Amino acid sequence: MLDEVASKMDVADLMATMGAKARDASAPLAIATSRQKNAALVAMADAIIAGTDKILKANAIDMENAAGSDMAASFVDRLRLDADRIESMAEGMRAIATLKDPVGDVIAGWTRPNGLQIERVRTPLGVIGVIYESRPNVTADAGALCLKAGNAVILRGGSDSHNSSGAIHDCLVEGLKAAGLPEDAIQRVPVTDRQAVGEMLKGLGGAIDVIVPRGGKSLVERVQSEARVPVFAHLEGLCHVYVDASADLEMAKAIAVNAKMRRTGICGAAETLLVDTGAAGSHLAPLLDALTAAGCEIRASEDVKALYPKAVAASEADWSTEYLDAIISVALVNGIGGAVDHINRYSSNHTEAVIAEDPAVVERFMNEIDSAILLHNASTQFADGGEFGMGAEIGIATGKMHARGPVGVEQLTSFKYRVRGSGQVRP
Amino acid sequence: MLDEVASKMDVADLMATMGAKARDASAPLAIATSRQKNAALVAMADAIIAGTDKILKANAIDMENAAGSDMAASFVDRLRLDADRIESMAEGMRAIATLKDPVGDVIAGWTRPNGLQIERVRTPLGVIGVIYESRPNVTADAGALCLKAGNAVILRGGSDSHNSSGAIHDCLVEGLKAAGLPEDAIQRVPVTDRQAVGEMLKGLGGAIDVIVPRGGKSLVERVQSEARVPVFAHLEGLCHVYVDASADLEMAKAIAVNAKMRRTGICGAAETLLVDTGAAGSHLAPLLDALTAAGCEIRASEDVKALYPKAVAASEADWSTEYLDAIISVALVNGIGGAVDHINRYSSNHTEAVIAEDPAVVERFMNEIDSAILLHNASTQFADGGEFGMGAEIGIATGKMHARGPVGVEQLTSFKYRVRGSGQVRP
Repeated sequence: MLDEVASKMDVADLMATMGAKARDASAPLAIATSRQKNAALVAMADAIIAGTDKILKANAIDMENAAGSDMAASFVDRLRLDADRIESMAEGMRAIATLKDPVGDVIAGWTRPNGLQIERVRTPLGVIGVIYESRPNVTADAGALCLKAGNAVILRGGSDSHNSSGAIHDCLVEGLKAAGLPEDAIQRVPVTDRQAVGEMLKGLGGAIDVIVPRGGKSLVERVQSEARVPVFAHLEGLCHVYVDASADLEMAKAIAVNAKMRRTGICGAAETLLVDTGAAGSHLAPLLDALTAAGCEIRASEDVKALYPKAVAASEADWSTEYLDAIISVALVNGIGGAVDHINRYSSNHTEAVIAEDPAVVERFMNEIDSAILLHNASTQFADGGEFGMGAEIGIATGKMHARGPVGVEQLTSFKYRVRGSGQVRP
Repeated sequence: MLDEVASKMDVADLMATMGAKARDASAPLAIATSRQKNAALVAMADAIIAGTDKILKANAIDMENAAGSDMAASFVDRLRLDADRIESMAEGMRAIATLKDPVGDVIAGWTRPNGLQIERVRTPLGVIGVIYESRPNVTADAGALCLKAGNAVILRGGSDSHNSSGAIHDCLVEGLKAAGLPEDAIQRVPVTDRQAVGEMLKGLGGAIDVIVPRGGKSLVERVQSEARVPVFAHLEGLCHVYVDASADLEMAKAIAVNAKMRRTGICGAAETLLVDTGAAGSHLAPLLDALTAAGCEIRASEDVKALYPKAVAASEADWSTEYLDAIISVALVNGIGGAVDHINRYSSNHTEAVIAEDPAVVERFMNEIDSAILLHNASTQFADGGEFGMGAEIGIATGKMHARGPVGVEQLTSFKYRVRGSGQVRP
């Protein structure tokens, strides 16, 4: 219904109207109480469970359309919903309801010599635009996270998951209504026309404060190059594991295998293993044997290949390749200095791990590498908002402005200063 | 000399080279010790004092050029340097040297149930581009603030202050050298060609992380519309003072006069006075008498004019006008609700003050208005990094992303996560 109506409207007008509605909804949302927002989240979860059949029916249409296309199996898998996936969407919302409300949180406070009491408190950002691809669950996750942080959101999902997202969105609106919050707090672009994305990237006449793209590199690159508003972007995760000569070998093996092979398709998966030349004799072969045994292909630098001949020779491009697959590039480096140089040259500044027992090595790694997440003696696959205890994330930001690393409810806020005086004037 | 050489080069090449040099300098700067950065700041201050004659000579050339132009007197005043102004520039640098180093500061820390210890620590942003107009002292202030926060900076001052800025920049480079820091940590665009600004706004091939414009609205608007990198912008300060019926009249008079008249040309100067209808009989005339006595012109809404006939009638445009002059627009509003509505409609979300004794009024003002700075019983002219105890500011941001309000050394940083484990792998 909405689709038909919308297709007859000018997309630019439609989007401008959505922007204005989001802006209007953002004011009452910004001062909504935690209780009210949490009630909406729980009601949204309930509506999703109650709407399981409708959601599955809508998803079946999307799956049927996908079956007639040449979509990759992994893409179709991301699109597919079942009762378990719907259940976990609802659980995710309930978990977000239990998170601490970031809005109103006093981040810092101090008193000036003239008696002025200054507080820095968190405020919502305003209106967030989320542009995503096939995963229909982003509709629920992004809607819930934005709401928790007091932001209005405009969701624009992929055309492949259009029906599924629509059915999920209906449940979110039900929850908003039940809690007495404005329906326009969570809007979904009702048309699949790609012009809608272009309009969002222009900011809808100042209505959108920030754009969050969720999807592959080509989507994110388009968003970054076209957006006229700030973007929380995740470009790629070219993550490194450095094994120092001081590393415990068993720990290094377990972490390297987990960092690479637990799930190869996520951004926190390791893509390059760097081994200290000082551990070439002791650690290299056992590490590569463990990775090979786990089903991983080794792309090796010349000196690694000399010591481990069954590896494939790496080309220069391998050091900059995010495989997202069971492949790892491996190089020998001259201690921590060599590791820092290699990582600072090739990394996408997402997540890196050092396996070492020498505290001086760990400190250099932690200080001299400028990536969003640096881990010591732990797997890069912990690069995740949930694992960080943030409850949920809307994505991981690889930029350095405002948000960096997992983007949870806190990162979806801004702040303001409250200053309390007793008649002070400035001399 | 440099100018001659540079004018023969392609500006795009010149700027790209500056970008690459800044990027190279940013790595050692990011891990420079506080002691080293502070030593550079003190050496820079010393060099400025020692270079007073040279700076004054260079400034005399700029002043001579200005005299032959049709520049406004206020513009020429901002350009003019004397021994006192040079002394206070040097003092500013010494003050920045005494500030706490934000880099490495642990902002938050927590431990996960699996034993992972997570810390969020401040890091430099990287490379900052500062684009400013006639004030030559911005060269010193911006250079010093960026250095303190571990950032490399590219300074592009106005062509009117080109010689003055050049002489100041020479002193900064002397200080960097004396402390063993890379000279390219603080670079200044050596040509006045406006193309240089365009190149900076494109980000110099990814070298620039953020642009800070310092200047009038037209400069800031150009930067905001053309920039392909994040911007910490200050658009305008349309600041309000709301006097509630519960306000202490004497305090309200003192604050209103100070907020408007202490300095009319700064962004924290009040532009609109809102008076509670409940105080129309008691507070309005005394407030307007006090402002008039201080030399301020009153532009009044109809109901105000009815009660205070000697005021000038305000037009709709007055509610959106940043006078930066001895003029104030005055309206009656229906209590705190009316004040919130008026401010949320017309404010530039910079700074607003409430004068009230009723705590419920104060709380609504603090919660329901989304401006960078909200003050209770204090003058809007406190909207300043120095007054906030930040030591110094590179400007005041009116946006909500990353930095908001005064931009001091903390706001010139990003952060990263340091995670310490003992062999954790993700299940």
